[in-house]
Amino acid sequence: MTTNWDQYVRPAIRAMAGYTPGEQPQTGGVLKLNTNENPYPPSPKALEAMRRVLDEQGAERLRRYPEPLGDRFRATAARVLGVRPGNIVIGNGSDDILTILTRTLVPEGGRVLSLEPSYLLYGTLASLQGARMEEISFATGWELPEPWPKPGANLVFLPNPNSPSGTVVGLDRIRRVLPQMGAPLVLDEAYVDFAPATGLELVREGLPVIVTRSLSKGYALAGLRFGFAVADEALVREMEKVKDSYNCDAISLAGAEAALADQEWLQETRAKVIASRDHLERGLAHLGFTVTPSEANFVWCRHPRHAARSLFDGLKAQNIFIRLMRYPGHEDGIRITVGTPEGTQRVLDTLAGLVGSAA
Amino acid sequence: MTTNWDQYVRPAIRAMAGYTPGEQPQTGGVLKLNTNENPYPPSPKALEAMRRVLDEQGAERLRRYPEPLGDRFRATAARVLGVRPGNIVIGNGSDDILTILTRTLVPEGGRVLSLEPSYLLYGTLASLQGARMEEISFATGWELPEPWPKPGANLVFLPNPNSPSGTVVGLDRIRRVLPQMGAPLVLDEAYVDFAPATGLELVREGLPVIVTRSLSKGYALAGLRFGFAVADEALVREMEKVKDSYNCDAISLAGAEAALADQEWLQETRAKVIASRDHLERGLAHLGFTVTPSEANFVWCRHPRHAARSLFDGLKAQNIFIRLMRYPGHEDGIRITVGTPEGTQRVLDTLAGLVGSAA
Repeated sequence: MTTNWDQYVRPAIRAMAGYTPGEQPQTGGVLKLNTNENPYPPSPKALEAMRRVLDEQGAERLRRYPEPLGDRFRATAARVLGVRPGNIVIGNGSDDILTILTRTLVPEGGRVLSLEPSYLLYGTLASLQGARMEEISFATGWELPEPWPKPGANLVFLPNPNSPSGTVVGLDRIRRVLPQMGAPLVLDEAYVDFAPATGLELVREGLPVIVTRSLSKGYALAGLRFGFAVADEALVREMEKVKDSYNCDAISLAGAEAALADQEWLQETRAKVIASRDHLERGLAHLGFTVTPSEANFVWCRHPRHAARSLFDGLKAQNIFIRLMRYPGHEDGIRITVGTPEGTQRVLDTLAGLVGSAA
Repeated sequence: MTTNWDQYVRPAIRAMAGYTPGEQPQTGGVLKLNTNENPYPPSPKALEAMRRVLDEQGAERLRRYPEPLGDRFRATAARVLGVRPGNIVIGNGSDDILTILTRTLVPEGGRVLSLEPSYLLYGTLASLQGARMEEISFATGWELPEPWPKPGANLVFLPNPNSPSGTVVGLDRIRRVLPQMGAPLVLDEAYVDFAPATGLELVREGLPVIVTRSLSKGYALAGLRFGFAVADEALVREMEKVKDSYNCDAISLAGAEAALADQEWLQETRAKVIASRDHLERGLAHLGFTVTPSEANFVWCRHPRHAARSLFDGLKAQNIFIRLMRYPGHEDGIRITVGTPEGTQRVLDTLAGLVGSAA
């Protein structure tokens, strides 16, 4: 017997292509600059905290269900960030948090807005919910458009810094435009650890803003899957209904707490990444690329004489993975994650060969 | 400023109470028999595999994103279970899998069916999706009702073994009733590792059945959050659109793979739990309880002369946590997780004190 599954699957899901994550080659020898992983290791204190779960109390901590709300993590994160534990929702990666927010706030048939070009997952989350995704162009200088052209959506997503541009929207502009939006704003701060400022104060001020955070980038823990939201306590209570009861495991809770507590390690890593980012931006400009100045751990660029696709293929042929970014209505570009000084030099040298040395 | 979040939250979410998981006391000294954790530790090979991720390659494996589809886990699980890797979807606990299935198959306004009394999370998942939950009583002997009273739902959930009863529905009955259902059936095998048979062959036969599995019970890894689905490859492809791209972390993937591979450890643990279950059932019957014979790692019972609530409170006062199960239209009962021989004896001795020795 064969079951025709098409008759059972929701039409919204059947019609979707699904989100395509960047390639994750699991073999060695590859210079991986395609999914904005940190080139430096996570805090040794985070690794140590996770080892302790496995070594001293492993059997017992893993045998039992973890803390549903992550109270110990929340206490530490609240102290570090200057908010209350009740403002924090834990997530199995910040994608889990974005899913929880969409399910809490967006009905089937609802409207989700995003700036463009931006993180493509937002459109996937809207489709999964059976909602409509509308995209709004950034204003000049990668700022929020003012006046806001489409008020009254169910949710607005703004990555700050944005991907692929690496640019940041100013908090004053957000404060001015927010009343025009008439919708909650998700300030997706996955890359904030490389940027000059956070929007946490908007949450503290009681504005309809949710800040989401990831431990995948600044804290170098992409493999651990941990993220969180900072939001008003009333919204946190609704999000807790939507999240899986045990969405974070005992090891990741311990590792995430220790990583957040080790701000010194974060600052050292951050300084090294920013130094390499400057080197990458200058090197790309020297090779004739048009470069958008970045506040994140990646650089988005185009070359006036070389197609993004051919540069992507040329780098891949030499075992360097970057991301080819294609947005309808925009010229193709490439997004290069900031690596170590050696990795950065290698991608610059290889690109020099591909574009024919300095232009 | 204060934001009124009620205006933004989906009415379906606002109206929900949210699922209440069993208490997870994190302090020592408690005999925890309330959430069906395994009293024995997980496979030492699983712990060793996770230690290797942290020790030898920790920084590198955690710095990078994990395998999105868990290919190595799927290859091992497929070999152990006698299915193809393309039949398997990985999940952050089997609750994640149940969420993915609901979102793949149930539209807002759709209908979800469950037998009752059963796992209360199914109703929560239906509410989150804005769907209607309808409950159907088990037929005599905890079998599927035949003929099936409510055909044409979007999804039917059947835990097999069921909680709280610990009973099992026969595969022949499922084969007969399935065409009458006219809906996909989720066979939730969270407790199958303590039962005599699995329904995997129904998936192999091409029937509209999805088998879901957990590593929280038989494999003693509740703290790790890992589960998976076994389904037709066509449905797997749709579920992969719905799941978060990186829903399982590098450590849990390694631990889950090693745990599945160590079937010898599972069989030893299983034999010990089943021996204690027999002792618990006989002891409860001796104390005058009405006991439903269980194929899982818990026992559901009632006492004709003592209210379930008072027994629950009496045990809690002596640091023994069990689960008070209340279903509308059913008498309250208690569900006791099978512990070690010592734990089992302790709960029996304490109950003997509460019910006034043998009845």
